[in-house]
Amino acid sequence: MPQNSPNRSWTTSITFVAPSFVRIGSLISGGKNSQRVDKSWSCVKRCRPMANATTDELEKVIHERLDVGKVTAMTRAGTSGWAVMHRATTDTGKRLFIKVSREDASMFQGEAQGLSAMFDTQTIRVPEVFQYGQLSSVQGSYIIMEALDLSPIYDQGELGRQLARLHLADPVLPEAHQGRFGFSIDNTIGATPQPNGWMEDWVSFFRERRLKHQLLLTGDSGLIDRGNRLCLRLNDLFDDIKDDIKPSLLHGDLWSGNISGEYAAPVIFDPACYYGHHEADFGMSWCGGFASGFWEGYHDLIPRAPRFEQRQKLYQLYHFLNHYNLFGGGYYGMADLILDQLLKELQ
Amino acid sequence: MPQNSPNRSWTTSITFVAPSFVRIGSLISGGKNSQRVDKSWSCVKRCRPMANATTDELEKVIHERLDVGKVTAMTRAGTSGWAVMHRATTDTGKRLFIKVSREDASMFQGEAQGLSAMFDTQTIRVPEVFQYGQLSSVQGSYIIMEALDLSPIYDQGELGRQLARLHLADPVLPEAHQGRFGFSIDNTIGATPQPNGWMEDWVSFFRERRLKHQLLLTGDSGLIDRGNRLCLRLNDLFDDIKDDIKPSLLHGDLWSGNISGEYAAPVIFDPACYYGHHEADFGMSWCGGFASGFWEGYHDLIPRAPRFEQRQKLYQLYHFLNHYNLFGGGYYGMADLILDQLLKELQ
Repeated sequence: MPQNSPNRSWTTSITFVAPSFVRIGSLISGGKNSQRVDKSWSCVKRCRPMANATTDELEKVIHERLDVGKVTAMTRAGTSGWAVMHRATTDTGKRLFIKVSREDASMFQGEAQGLSAMFDTQTIRVPEVFQYGQLSSVQGSYIIMEALDLSPIYDQGELGRQLARLHLADPVLPEAHQGRFGFSIDNTIGATPQPNGWMEDWVSFFRERRLKHQLLLTGDSGLIDRGNRLCLRLNDLFDDIKDDIKPSLLHGDLWSGNISGEYAAPVIFDPACYYGHHEADFGMSWCGGFASGFWEGYHDLIPRAPRFEQRQKLYQLYHFLNHYNLFGGGYYGMADLILDQLLKELQ
Repeated sequence: MPQNSPNRSWTTSITFVAPSFVRIGSLISGGKNSQRVDKSWSCVKRCRPMANATTDELEKVIHERLDVGKVTAMTRAGTSGWAVMHRATTDTGKRLFIKVSREDASMFQGEAQGLSAMFDTQTIRVPEVFQYGQLSSVQGSYIIMEALDLSPIYDQGELGRQLARLHLADPVLPEAHQGRFGFSIDNTIGATPQPNGWMEDWVSFFRERRLKHQLLLTGDSGLIDRGNRLCLRLNDLFDDIKDDIKPSLLHGDLWSGNISGEYAAPVIFDPACYYGHHEADFGMSWCGGFASGFWEGYHDLIPRAPRFEQRQKLYQLYHFLNHYNLFGGGYYGMADLILDQLLKELQ
C-alpha cells in the first residue's frame, strides 16, 4: 500500500554506510582530545545539548556526505538510556533524525544493518538510515536517519499483517536464503551483545546463540543448571513444526517502546534483527501492547501453529534473562518461573 | 518551563464536560437504531472508518459545543483494543483528537476526569480534554481532546522530574486535600473496573480497592487464599513510612504505551487516575522503559524510601493480577510468583 511504503527516493543519491568513515575500534583518546571526550560524555549523562565540536562535525558529515544541503537547524529531541537524540533540517528542506552515543559505532552498525534489512523488504515502515560512523572530534558515534512524523496511534490489525509480511518476505542475505539462521553481523539486544553467527538449524541456533549466551551472562548457577537441562529438551517443543521453520527476518526487540505510528500506519524501529523462527519475534509480547486485532491480523497470514503458547514462553525466557542481565531485580523471578514451568511441562 | 506547560488558552471558551450531554446509562437500542448500532460496531471491530451517522454527529458536537469552527477534515488515526481514533481539523485551524467506542461513556468519563486532574496540576504535559459523551446516532460514546504533535522521543530525566512534581502537587479534590485516598469517580484499568471510593488510610485502600478487588475477579482460590494472607501482613511493608504517605495524584497506568514526547518534552495519557501513595505509580515499571536518567530525575525530587523495592513488587502484583484478569496466560505465573515471594519475605 502506497501509504505504508518506505520512501526510497533518496537511495540513489545517499550512501547508506560509508565504509571509509566507519572506523570501529579507532576511538580517539588521550592528548588534546581527552577533555573534549569527558565534556561530551557529561553532556550525554546530563541530557544537555551536544558539545559544539560534535554539532560541527555532524553538520559537516551531513553537508559533505549526504548531499542534502546545509543544516539550518538542529534541536535536541530527547535522550534514551545511552544516546542523545537530535532533529536537523537542511536548507533543501530535508529533515533528519540523529542519535549520538559515547559508545563506539558497533551498536549503530547493528541498528543500521537491521533497519536497512527490514527497509529492503518493503513490507513494514521503518526509518531509512543514511549514515552512521565514529565521531572524530569526541569519543562517540552517531547514526543519521530520516525523521518520521510519529504518533503513538496506529492500526493494530495493520501492524499484525505487516509484521507477518516481514516474516514471510524472501530473505535477501544469501545465507538466510539458503536456509541458515543468524545475521550478517553480531548486534545488541538492549546493551547486551547478541551473537548472530550463522547456523544450519534453528533449535541449535536458539540454544547456543540465545539461551546459553544469556544464561552464562547471569553467572547464576541455579539458572544455568536448569537452563542447561531445558536446552537438552528443547527439540521437544519443535516436534510438530520442525520441518516448517524457515529463516524469517525478525525485528528482534518488538516491544511497545519500539512501535509507533505515522499517519496511523505502524512503524517499527530500534531493532535487534536476525533471521530466525518467526514466533521468536513475540518474546517481548508481555510488553507489546498487542490488542486482539493485532493477533487476528498476524494469524490471518501466518496461522498459529501447535504449541505456539509453549514456545512463546521459551522465547520470552530469552528476553527475561536479558532483562535480568541488564536491570537485575524482579526479572530474575520471571526467568526462574518460566524455566520451572517449561522443565515441568517437558518432563 | 514554558515548553512543557499545557496550553490553557481554550479553557475559558470550551466546556470541559457538558453534563446535559453526558447521559450515562441512557444507551439507545432497539427500534430503528438497532441496525445502525450493529453497523457502527462492525466498523469498530474491523477498524474501518466511522459510520456516516457518527461522523455527522461528531461534526455537529464540535461545531455547536466547542466553539472552534466547522470540521473541514476528519481522518482515521488508528485503533486500540476497544476504540477507533480520528483526527479532525476545523476551519479555524484547530486540531482535535477523537476516540469513539462502542461502550457507554463511563470509560471516557474516567479518562476525561483523570486527564483533567493531571492537566490542572500544570506539572506534566497531558492532552487537554474538551468534551466527552454518549453518541445518540449509534450505540457508543466519544471523547474529544486536543491533538498533540507526539513522537516517541522524550527526555527521560524530564519525565522523572515532572512525574515527581505531579506526585508532589497539592491535591485539588477536597477529599484528597484532607488526606484521603481515592478519586472523584470509579474508573477503569485497561477494561477492568477500578473502584476509587475514598478511604482514610492508604494501606486499607490498597488492600480493599486494589488487591482484594482484583483477587476476587480472578476467581482462583489459590491466588485468593494467598492474597488474603498477604493482605493480613500488608502493614509490615509500610512500617518505615506510614506517617509519610500523602495522597498523590497518580497516572495509574504508567507503561511505555501511555508515555510519549512532544518536541522532546514528555507527555502522558490514557490514565487510570486516583490519589494514592506515589510509589504505586511504578506498578507498571516492568513495562515502562524507564532508563537510569528517569530514576535519577524522579529521586532527585522524591528520595527513594526504605523497602521501595519490596513495595514495588506489591504494586506490580496489582497490575499482574489485572493483566491476568484481562489476558490470562503467563500473567498468572507472575502474580503467583510475587505472591509467593512477598509471603516468604513477610513471614
